[in-house]
Amino acid sequence: MNHPYTVDLNCDMGESFGAYSLGPDEAILPFVTSANIACGYHAGDPAVMRRTVRRALHQQVAIGAHPGLPDLVGFGRREMAVSAEEAYDMTVYQLGALAAFVRAEGGVLHHVKPHGALYNMAAVNPILAEALAEAVYRVQPEACLYGLAGSALIEAGRKLGLATAHEVFADRTYQPNGTLTPRRQPDALLTDPAAAIAQVVRMVKEGRVRAQSGTDVTIQADTICLHGDGAHALEFARLIRATLAQEGIEVRPYQPATA
Amino acid sequence: MNHPYTVDLNCDMGESFGAYSLGPDEAILPFVTSANIACGYHAGDPAVMRRTVRRALHQQVAIGAHPGLPDLVGFGRREMAVSAEEAYDMTVYQLGALAAFVRAEGGVLHHVKPHGALYNMAAVNPILAEALAEAVYRVQPEACLYGLAGSALIEAGRKLGLATAHEVFADRTYQPNGTLTPRRQPDALLTDPAAAIAQVVRMVKEGRVRAQSGTDVTIQADTICLHGDGAHALEFARLIRATLAQEGIEVRPYQPATA
Amino acid sequence: MNHPYTVDLNCDMGESFGAYSLGPDEAILPFVTSANIACGYHAGDPAVMRRTVRRALHQQVAIGAHPGLPDLVGFGRREMAVSAEEAYDMTVYQLGALAAFVRAEGGVLHHVKPHGALYNMAAVNPILAEALAEAVYRVQPEACLYGLAGSALIEAGRKLGLATAHEVFADRTYQPNGTLTPRRQPDALLTDPAAAIAQVVRMVKEGRVRAQSGTDVTIQADTICLHGDGAHALEFARLIRATLAQEGIEVRPYQPATA
Amino acid sequence: MNHPYTVDLNCDMGESFGAYSLGPDEAILPFVTSANIACGYHAGDPAVMRRTVRRALHQQVAIGAHPGLPDLVGFGRREMAVSAEEAYDMTVYQLGALAAFVRAEGGVLHHVKPHGALYNMAAVNPILAEALAEAVYRVQPEACLYGLAGSALIEAGRKLGLATAHEVFADRTYQPNGTLTPRRQPDALLTDPAAAIAQVVRMVKEGRVRAQSGTDVTIQADTICLHGDGAHALEFARLIRATLAQEGIEVRPYQPATA
Repeated sequence: MNHPYTVDLNCDMGESFGAYSLGPDEAILPFVTSANIACGYHAGDPAVMRRTVRRALHQQVAIGAHPGLPDLVGFGRREMAVSAEEAYDMTVYQLGALAAFVRAEGGVLHHVKPHGALYNMAAVNPILAEALAEAVYRVQPEACLYGLAGSALIEAGRKLGLATAHEVFADRTYQPNGTLTPRRQPDALLTDPAAAIAQVVRMVKEGRVRAQSGTDVTIQADTICLHGDGAHALEFARLIRATLAQEGIEVRPYQPATA
Repeated sequence: MNHPYTVDLNCDMGESFGAYSLGPDEAILPFVTSANIACGYHAGDPAVMRRTVRRALHQQVAIGAHPGLPDLVGFGRREMAVSAEEAYDMTVYQLGALAAFVRAEGGVLHHVKPHGALYNMAAVNPILAEALAEAVYRVQPEACLYGLAGSALIEAGRKLGLATAHEVFADRTYQPNGTLTPRRQPDALLTDPAAAIAQVVRMVKEGRVRAQSGTDVTIQADTICLHGDGAHALEFARLIRATLAQEGIEVRPYQPATA
Repeated sequence: MNHPYTVDLNCDMGESFGAYSLGPDEAILPFVTSANIACGYHAGDPAVMRRTVRRALHQQVAIGAHPGLPDLVGFGRREMAVSAEEAYDMTVYQLGALAAFVRAEGGVLHHVKPHGALYNMAAVNPILAEALAEAVYRVQPEACLYGLAGSALIEAGRKLGLATAHEVFADRTYQPNGTLTPRRQPDALLTDPAAAIAQVVRMVKEGRVRAQSGTDVTIQADTICLHGDGAHALEFARLIRATLAQEGIEVRPYQPATA
Repeated sequence: MNHPYTVDLNCDMGESFGAYSLGPDEAILPFVTSANIACGYHAGDPAVMRRTVRRALHQQVAIGAHPGLPDLVGFGRREMAVSAEEAYDMTVYQLGALAAFVRAEGGVLHHVKPHGALYNMAAVNPILAEALAEAVYRVQPEACLYGLAGSALIEAGRKLGLATAHEVFADRTYQPNGTLTPRRQPDALLTDPAAAIAQVVRMVKEGRVRAQSGTDVTIQADTICLHGDGAHALEFARLIRATLAQEGIEVRPYQPATA
């Protein structure tokens, strides 16, 4: 069977820590094709990393490192004034730690996606973006770099010759320049599941998204970010999988065109 | 030139952290053939790891991971009741993080030597020793496992088919059963540099050490632990290198006999 | 109304951390008279501490500091070889931090109860017990020290003139010498709620408990430890409150006899 | 003897951590009248806090809490996007911890001075400044709040009725609006000790400082920040003490005018 359209569904995972449980990892795994696994800085601990890697391999879900800022209490969501060199160093460190668990379990690290504030800063700061891309390039050059569609991070990865995956969001609205509407704005979220899924289907099939202003923007949708938390996360995951199938869109781990 | 005797000189390094400097890493590097680099749990941070790996590669010193207990304030010297699984997980994590810096700089991880309390516990606890050896085996099977000469850790590595290096101490005295005299005993340390070096030469050449009781004990001396700290560390390092050369003992990174 | 019998019901609280929620603090508060609030070492963060202190004051529950070992990933449950001085220091630190939140909210710190491995070590190690008691004595001498009934910790507090509360467990069995049956033994837990409550009532009214061997042991029951976790925690809390009321046992924060 | 002029000399202290030594605390203590003691977030550990408090009390130096951002690896110097509530919480926590050591040693907490990035952010961000002032007000209302002369932090303290001390820097240059020349500018530092001391004397006696632009600016100099690090720190401390004495300026811990 020939699939003219393909897309990857990724989800953050392995965010439990010690005695603390977070996220319905086991329940969401069957719906996604890529797992971004926390590496101990913003969430996750070595035991959680091992267990999450095992689970993902068992479900044949592609494994990515999900490095964050060193801020457990803030879950890596608070911006920190880290230098490019510090961003490089913390990415090498976390990437290496996660990759070791993957190797220990007989798998291969498929991608790297920065978390939270690190993701956001690297989307708009080219210096930071280059530092993160450099870390991936030097440690795991065959891994794919996931970043916000059209962002500085994607551009930095492309320049180094890394495979890159443009990430889009089902439940977020977009601005005329192709960036996400900031969360503090009232219309930042698409709360209607049907609208969210329709937006995703159009991004995949037409490469366009309707901005809040009403104009169409070009966007590349290689991978869709699913949120594992929230009351309706599983329901939404099931619905999006079903709709993508109906629309003839194949869901599989991201593979660069040249592969 | 033919060297009937060889030995490795190793030293702990990269134990600085953030604004804190510790140890004369640059000064001691020219005297050693192996560097055990802290991995962020008991000491070291990602920036220190990167810099220390670079320095060691530049000096052609073999690089080892030096994983410790997660206890920065106690410098990994306080025993903790960690399970074998926890010991495995923390070793995989730290080993992977350090290996990533080595790979990023174009080097190869040569060995793994646990630090402080983790080293001591793994020397006598076979379950813990097996967990540590398993971590090395699964992540970096070609790396050599350094452990106390004749200890449970060496035995665990051997069973898994890892290369293992028996470590001896120049400045510590031994008990009739081949173990170190505990530090709390008054005669635990050899304070005379000449006696310390003579002890090492005999261990390398004859495979024996005179215990405090006066009896000789068989011991294998693949690698000698040098301490970088202390007022006379550099002086002692210089002296031991000169004496080993005079005695016709080649100093080089440990290589398993089969290599 | 005259109450010949009184007892305190205490529960560990404030063990959430950052993005992580743990324990049904709000639901259990109405059933207890004392709250032991984590201080950031084994669990809890400053925001959780502030919120938990507020809630406890609002419910007129007596507030205690619940200091633990510096081991977030192990939840303070792994024994660590800390010196008496280190135990003193970490208790002063955590006690002071929690007391500041209590003062900021207009309350008074009522007691101190060490957590997990620190509690267990201080129960049997007189040197450690004295260090903990000394910390309370020097920082908050009017606070009451909670410890395992008949333990070294209680004895250390008594020697310094601190008010002390002997703690008993509803759901644990006892040995002929008055200590708890170790958890690793099959008969360590009383799984039948009725038996657990009967044991407590007898400890309060008669000052005795039937050891697993069948012999009676003298025990002082000033405060009962309730566990907030587990499927039936709330149900059990409700049941024990009801039974204590029927038995004419007043439930209130522990007050030393001299007060 | 009548002293028309008085000023306080403060210095950051207690920034060692575990095995790591930082700063010549013992050597600098005789030259200062106030010590700002790190509280474990950006530097310091409980043992260091105890020892530093003891030393300061022994030298009759006024003790201040020196809370920082939770960033040990960055030494609290990297700005973090913390909310006002988070800033309040972390200040209450650290302030309480340090105050407990002071109480345990029989002393009184004299002041609070935020550290590094927290100090800088609170100097210009009124919301953050109010959160910090509120923390001091609720926990230790009799303590004095130290902040950059003329800053938002001083203003926030004043509004709450706290005693406040305007801090000036001997070795930094000023801008026409009374703020410090940013460190990234080439003329940010006064490297000539004589010029630095002359600047301080004029700030104390005349309440004015010559900005880099050449114009005079009004400034209040209640306390002077001495740096303990750097090659010439002790020499400079000795020199500034001698010059202040010659100029008839009394050096003593800051006391509010109304006290």
